[in-house]
Amino acid sequence: MGKNNSYANANRAALAQKGVLALNFVSSPGSGKTSLLVRTISDLKDKFSIAVIEGDQQTSNDAERIRATGAKALQVNTGKGCHLDAHMVGHALEHLDVAQNSLLFIENVGNLVCPAAFDLGEAHKVVLLSTTEGEDKPAKYPDMFAAADLMILNKSDLLPHLDFDVGACLAHALRVNPRLQTLVVSARTGEGLASFYAWIEARVALARKG
Amino acid sequence: MGKNNSYANANRAALAQKGVLALNFVSSPGSGKTSLLVRTISDLKDKFSIAVIEGDQQTSNDAERIRATGAKALQVNTGKGCHLDAHMVGHALEHLDVAQNSLLFIENVGNLVCPAAFDLGEAHKVVLLSTTEGEDKPAKYPDMFAAADLMILNKSDLLPHLDFDVGACLAHALRVNPRLQTLVVSARTGEGLASFYAWIEARVALARKG
Repeated sequence: MGKNNSYANANRAALAQKGVLALNFVSSPGSGKTSLLVRTISDLKDKFSIAVIEGDQQTSNDAERIRATGAKALQVNTGKGCHLDAHMVGHALEHLDVAQNSLLFIENVGNLVCPAAFDLGEAHKVVLLSTTEGEDKPAKYPDMFAAADLMILNKSDLLPHLDFDVGACLAHALRVNPRLQTLVVSARTGEGLASFYAWIEARVALARKG
Repeated sequence: MGKNNSYANANRAALAQKGVLALNFVSSPGSGKTSLLVRTISDLKDKFSIAVIEGDQQTSNDAERIRATGAKALQVNTGKGCHLDAHMVGHALEHLDVAQNSLLFIENVGNLVCPAAFDLGEAHKVVLLSTTEGEDKPAKYPDMFAAADLMILNKSDLLPHLDFDVGACLAHALRVNPRLQTLVVSARTGEGLASFYAWIEARVALARKG
């Protein structure tokens, strides 16, 4: 773990030197990380240069979905590993050649436990939860919600068909992490994405150099 | 000021005892505080009991707009005063008879300076800014943005017609207050309000008693 942290610090320093904002997306499988990234890249690609590191145990399906948007994407297969680590991300950065003042999305392996403990050198962890999951997930997986700076509740378009209490869900999350920022979005309909893009844009402006 | 703080603490204790969540809305004149409250009350009134304290130098126009939604509202006229103080709010609370586990909105006098310094006993200050104002307002009025927990950028429906850089505006705000939460909404079209309502609902759940 100490080794991971020193790799993470090296990644962070390299990203800062280039003015790159790196976000580490974490969630259970199927909460919609790749769909959110595909839509976000399509909506923001005229404003920013965007690259993506895709983490999965196997397959390069997600990197292919990202590349279809025109963004650079590198797939990292973790094999038996349940999370990306900072050493893998450092290697990926060597290959990706991320542009000055750009945006780097890291999509972690779908898992609400292991990725919480691993700093990859990102500026922020963004945790996704979807309305089709249980609203007590933040209470059951507190480490992940404590490690994140932003929680995105995705699939808001399904709320009328579900018995999901948004307020109770976010209250669980705030008990674990009182400083957690929260947004309710639908990557399918676009609801709420204006606030997500504004959140990103403000942090890109802060990360930029010269 | 010490006197204001002791009144504020008394208000906060009285509200906590009843499980009431109190939000103090601050902004320049014309950024849309009353319109946002009218829409929010209409959308949430089936879920929560809501009461409003309206602060203005003169007139009771805003309290009348609020009462048209069916919510209880009390107008406080500050005369020459440029802000509500905790003593005024304490008096208003005696008259309003706020319900157990309810929601209290306090709409402050439209002013980006004076209300920043006055604790009214609220749980959070919510600062509104609209897209028709300058994007450097958070840099020019840092005390207000430092005192707030949530910033709402209103009138997002006008963005296509304006030369307003949302990312730069929020970056100004984050330089003043790195923990500030930010939402982009339109009280007119409803864009982004799902995240605002979720933000409120989570905090109501945390404030409630028994």
